[in-house]
Amino acid sequence: MTKPPKQLTMITDLGESKLIERLTKDFEIHHKTTTLSIGDDAAVIDFDSDCSVISTDLLIDGIHFNLDYTHLKQLGYKSVIVNISDIYAMNAIPKYILVSIAVSNRFSVESLEQLYQGIQLACKNYHIELIGGDTSSNHRGLQISITAIGSSKKEKIVKRSGASKGDLLVVSGDLGAACLGLLVLERENQRISKNANYQPKFEPYRYFVGRQIKPEASKSTVQILEENDIVPTSMIDISDGLSTELSHLSQASNVGFKILENKIPVHSNLIEFSSEFKLNYLDLVFNGGEDYELLFTIKQKDLPIIASIPTLSVIGGTVHHGNKNLLIKEDGTELEIKPSGWDGFKDLTKSHIQTHHDDESTNES
Amino acid sequence: MTKPPKQLTMITDLGESKLIERLTKDFEIHHKTTTLSIGDDAAVIDFDSDCSVISTDLLIDGIHFNLDYTHLKQLGYKSVIVNISDIYAMNAIPKYILVSIAVSNRFSVESLEQLYQGIQLACKNYHIELIGGDTSSNHRGLQISITAIGSSKKEKIVKRSGASKGDLLVVSGDLGAACLGLLVLERENQRISKNANYQPKFEPYRYFVGRQIKPEASKSTVQILEENDIVPTSMIDISDGLSTELSHLSQASNVGFKILENKIPVHSNLIEFSSEFKLNYLDLVFNGGEDYELLFTIKQKDLPIIASIPTLSVIGGTVHHGNKNLLIKEDGTELEIKPSGWDGFKDLTKSHIQTHHDDESTNES
Repeated sequence: MTKPPKQLTMITDLGESKLIERLTKDFEIHHKTTTLSIGDDAAVIDFDSDCSVISTDLLIDGIHFNLDYTHLKQLGYKSVIVNISDIYAMNAIPKYILVSIAVSNRFSVESLEQLYQGIQLACKNYHIELIGGDTSSNHRGLQISITAIGSSKKEKIVKRSGASKGDLLVVSGDLGAACLGLLVLERENQRISKNANYQPKFEPYRYFVGRQIKPEASKSTVQILEENDIVPTSMIDISDGLSTELSHLSQASNVGFKILENKIPVHSNLIEFSSEFKLNYLDLVFNGGEDYELLFTIKQKDLPIIASIPTLSVIGGTVHHGNKNLLIKEDGTELEIKPSGWDGFKDLTKSHIQTHHDDESTNES
Repeated sequence: MTKPPKQLTMITDLGESKLIERLTKDFEIHHKTTTLSIGDDAAVIDFDSDCSVISTDLLIDGIHFNLDYTHLKQLGYKSVIVNISDIYAMNAIPKYILVSIAVSNRFSVESLEQLYQGIQLACKNYHIELIGGDTSSNHRGLQISITAIGSSKKEKIVKRSGASKGDLLVVSGDLGAACLGLLVLERENQRISKNANYQPKFEPYRYFVGRQIKPEASKSTVQILEENDIVPTSMIDISDGLSTELSHLSQASNVGFKILENKIPVHSNLIEFSSEFKLNYLDLVFNGGEDYELLFTIKQKDLPIIASIPTLSVIGGTVHHGNKNLLIKEDGTELEIKPSGWDGFKDLTKSHIQTHHDDESTNES
């Protein structure tokens, strides 16, 4: 990030109060539960008899996003999505966010306005209010911390721990696309840094790049469940790859899962494009992450309705008590799925699907 | 921060899930309103008919704290205090926190455990539960983001905007001490960096240094108000210095204040020690910040009770409609108090109390 030209406003010219005022002036209040919003020591919400559902996430440049190719408006949008996805994963409706940013003084006020335009667009699309936050200078780069607050009737809350034997495993949307988008962005970015005249090629990958830079949370899934009066037995959002999320459900519920490879929903070009990166598409599905789809279990009685919904795929089910999760290939081969999705503290270069050599769980299918 | 010796555990050795598990294993659940705590996509709280009161803060090394002389346990403690002080400032009771940290891989797990020990101690002392958070690596240093959630009956919530003409202005504790503590810490730290054999002198300043490194939130004030069935007309916590907080109350309530200099509660050594730094003690009171005392207005009918409480001081009152705030010196001189407390984006080296040359507001006293 170079120092902005003179016509841009430096953060130091405004000061914290005026900066917050300018960044948040166009945000709207939607909810009758909002008792007090931005401008006091704290925000006040009155959910009456509903539960509050609360989640928080950090996003840090160079770790969670790359400012070389991430537009600040898209980043603002995505920051909100990442967070509210956790609220949907509880079968709750996100209503509020608090946004804190720590930012180098080299960012202009105008660039931060773009960030907040993205946040505002997500608020608009998902009917969410910005009710607070904090703003600080930082030595370098940009860090975003978002807390999302949703609400739900207590009896509708879905935890990770409710799956039991015989339940079916369902996933929304398609998997692996956001990770492929990231690979494309990184490849094109490297090519540009080697050759300033290089024209990046995004056209055939548009869908995948879009899933990476402007993801959506699976609001529609929660709406479908509500409309059909289905409460999943367990649920999680797929932020770190299917292998990790599956292991979370598995451990919390103390069940094992079998997934049928040919039932996993993927975009028709995923297999072909994965091979460009010398990857099996399953690497992207299991270890990619950032899909922000919902992974959940249902009772078998709910299968007819779920199976009739085009955006949902039944990909397997619980098969035995225990935490071992298996992938069944088309030829009947069973592979053990190891939990090894994204970890902010580790480099992920290895493949995490290993051939299953243990006979124990094949007996329990 | 140097690379820790071999016997310490590196964050990368543990990975994110195990790190969170280790840092949060000793935290307790206190509240019957806790429906779901750490370990799922989001936490769930059921406040029933009470309102949720929510605030968030960022703390960044080199900006909000200096790791040269800040012990991580004290930092953890202070991070919680800073946040829950905002909840008390709404006349609410803090109940929950979510803690996110972004940290360089050079921090050991053991040093982060110290940070969390401080967080845990604050949780214990203030009867608060840790219900969530996020953990990420970062390029350098340490950033802490805390969201605090409290509850209150709707009719007990106190905003900044409720003060009206004739109300009295009250402050808890004493002011300016934390800033003096910071000056001492910075001075001694500079002396050490110039001379490694230098023995820092903290003894006469123990109280002031303590207010800086291990502040407390004014829980007792909120309890006193509750016990005496007094609801302030407006309230704010003093995080950025009296001048800024006064201006917030003044602008939100559209009233002006007069403060009597000789009523401002300060520690008996503040004036003497301020002069060591060639500062007037009023600079520390008005522009210092980090006192985390409560500043509030009451109806005159509540004066007898408030005046009888040793930890509270009536320092002035509202005098006219408008936003001009005056300091009345013992000799009757009036000085206008300009709002210029701490701003994360600006260097603060100037004094912010200016002699008042405008006759307008003196007519309205």
